[in-house]
Amino acid sequence: MAKTFKNMDKRVERSKAAVLRETYRQLSKNGISGVSIDVVSRTSGVSKTTIYRHWPSRSALLIDACSRLASVPMAPDTGSLRGDLCKLLKELASQLETANWSAVYPSIIDAAERDSEIRIMQAALHKAFMAPFGTVFNLAKNRGEIRSNKATTALLATSVGPLFYRRWFSREKIDGQFVEAIAETIVQTAYARSTK
Amino acid sequence: MAKTFKNMDKRVERSKAAVLRETYRQLSKNGISGVSIDVVSRTSGVSKTTIYRHWPSRSALLIDACSRLASVPMAPDTGSLRGDLCKLLKELASQLETANWSAVYPSIIDAAERDSEIRIMQAALHKAFMAPFGTVFNLAKNRGEIRSNKATTALLATSVGPLFYRRWFSREKIDGQFVEAIAETIVQTAYARSTK
Repeated sequence: MAKTFKNMDKRVERSKAAVLRETYRQLSKNGISGVSIDVVSRTSGVSKTTIYRHWPSRSALLIDACSRLASVPMAPDTGSLRGDLCKLLKELASQLETANWSAVYPSIIDAAERDSEIRIMQAALHKAFMAPFGTVFNLAKNRGEIRSNKATTALLATSVGPLFYRRWFSREKIDGQFVEAIAETIVQTAYARSTK
Repeated sequence: MAKTFKNMDKRVERSKAAVLRETYRQLSKNGISGVSIDVVSRTSGVSKTTIYRHWPSRSALLIDACSRLASVPMAPDTGSLRGDLCKLLKELASQLETANWSAVYPSIIDAAERDSEIRIMQAALHKAFMAPFGTVFNLAKNRGEIRSNKATTALLATSVGPLFYRRWFSREKIDGQFVEAIAETIVQTAYARSTK
């Protein structure tokens, strides 16, 4: 009896994995709006009834598949804000230029404009992606490299925004020189006296 | 005879306007992937045959409708880089928070990841949106506010990127204080000696 349950569990796990794998494949190829439960069911060989038993809605399945997109880098600890930022931004630049998620992310942003469930998921993904920057800024604050009255949310926008801009908006190359110039700007801004 | 041609021209213009209006409405409501020629035809009352006579493909119609999204601000000329940037960035911030195109743009970015025609259209839209910044940077270069060896493309990414980041990625408010801090950062960066 125990063994039968175990086999059933394994079968369930295999089906779920097949559905997620196929959803992820469609997601990577076509973006969120290109994922169809009919096609997922047909190509994974798992019936729609079974799919809807595990994920109550298309959004729920998409959220589960998207949450596997993120490969969040560890926060570095080189001893300086400049060093840490260069390392993190270079890792981000490399992911933006090669990782699967970077072609899929605009479809998540787009869906989030109209779907509140997807918006919540995007916020969670974003928070996870940005967490190492928070760590790096806290370390820098403790070392006195960021003035205590500076909002690190503005520093984060100024660190990451230019890279996102190049990847998805201007579609320019994100090279090492660009990343180093951004890190330099952040180091200067973090320590500058506010004009107001 | 001349009159008949004129009436026909007017009818054609009216049909084209109705199709574009309906496409734009669907685009604003559902993003690019939510635009269907079937629905455009039904709700505009213009037959699919007529639609395809004016626009050879769905992409061509989308491109025409999208090109009406942009409301490009004039380049200001306040006499300083700080003043010009504050003005331009505040106008951009206001559009990002209220204009129709700001909810539609992610769907264009997403479609551009997979459709080369849309990618060309996005590049043209982007160039038009960014043109006033180019003008402002050139004026500043002539006044000596930007060092001659600075790449203005990096300054542009650092000006606009943080605003785009807040609108579509972190979904934070883009307030006046944030915009002024960005302008201050750019003014400092533009005049700073390079470390390398």
